[in-house]
Amino acid sequence: MSRTRTVRDYIRTIVDFPHEGIMFRDVTTLFADPRGFRMAIDQMLHPYAGEQIDKVVGLEARGFILGGAIAHQLSVGFVPIRKKGKLPGTTISQDYKLEYGEAIVEIHDDAIAAGEKILLVDDLLATGGTAAAGIRLIERLGGQIVSCAFIIDLPELGGRKVLEGMGMDVHALCEFDGA
Amino acid sequence: MSRTRTVRDYIRTIVDFPHEGIMFRDVTTLFADPRGFRMAIDQMLHPYAGEQIDKVVGLEARGFILGGAIAHQLSVGFVPIRKKGKLPGTTISQDYKLEYGEAIVEIHDDAIAAGEKILLVDDLLATGGTAAAGIRLIERLGGQIVSCAFIIDLPELGGRKVLEGMGMDVHALCEFDGA
Repeated sequence: MSRTRTVRDYIRTIVDFPHEGIMFRDVTTLFADPRGFRMAIDQMLHPYAGEQIDKVVGLEARGFILGGAIAHQLSVGFVPIRKKGKLPGTTISQDYKLEYGEAIVEIHDDAIAAGEKILLVDDLLATGGTAAAGIRLIERLGGQIVSCAFIIDLPELGGRKVLEGMGMDVHALCEFDGA
Repeated sequence: MSRTRTVRDYIRTIVDFPHEGIMFRDVTTLFADPRGFRMAIDQMLHPYAGEQIDKVVGLEARGFILGGAIAHQLSVGFVPIRKKGKLPGTTISQDYKLEYGEAIVEIHDDAIAAGEKILLVDDLLATGGTAAAGIRLIERLGGQIVSCAFIIDLPELGGRKVLEGMGMDVHALCEFDGA
């Protein structure tokens, strides 16, 4: 008897990408499979059945793939959070620390209205740095974050604790060990 | 009596982005609106009702938002074409000319099987350079491109002619003048 493949089974691990010592969890093999992609989007939405969600916010770039699909499924709008300099309109920005140096993410300042209920999505929760910066951007515009949804959580990197420490509800479909 | 807003009406123009003299057609205002985003995805799919599509390929980065939504709607897989160095697995790459210099895009070499029917999507058709590079990548893997779907065509920039000259079927939801 064969077990049905889970979302986690479709994820491929690439050793030493983007640099030595990293086990990169590659969701492109999940996205390329019709059943895998369907299951991932449906399962990411299961915790929110019956909840009011006004907009989906996705983090560049893999969060765009998920966020577009989820926003369409919910018939709500989609808002991108992008790296500095990519958004054409007036933005607010937020910096955050990386392993080496820092990065800046931006959101259009008219993309979210005060009080709107937001679902934040990305593929991977690692240290939580990018997601935390995204949360701050959404909250600075007055958005109310219903939850943060990921496919993968890497618990050893502590991102879930960072986001829960900010008062967030966090869901992930699966976990992997290590970085 | 008020006319129903079309997809085109939701698109905002930003003057002088990313540099002076460019009228940037900004689809983020379309994506952020629940009815606008729903209409855009539904209308992009109308030409393909009844057609076999095995996979949707999206061009980084706004093509990811559309491609994720369209692949989910069709219950097929999604494959990203990314800028050089972003994909973790083994890739093939294709260079193309920009206004100044050149750029390289990549696809995972196992992302498409020979004979698979592909829908290529992006938000904007301008000179067609990125789309043409994407078409070459898909064809090098043996994919059969059913059509190329865009929200916006800028006819003065000639991209449609470039793609049609490659034997492509091209659909766009609306047109704008100028660059």
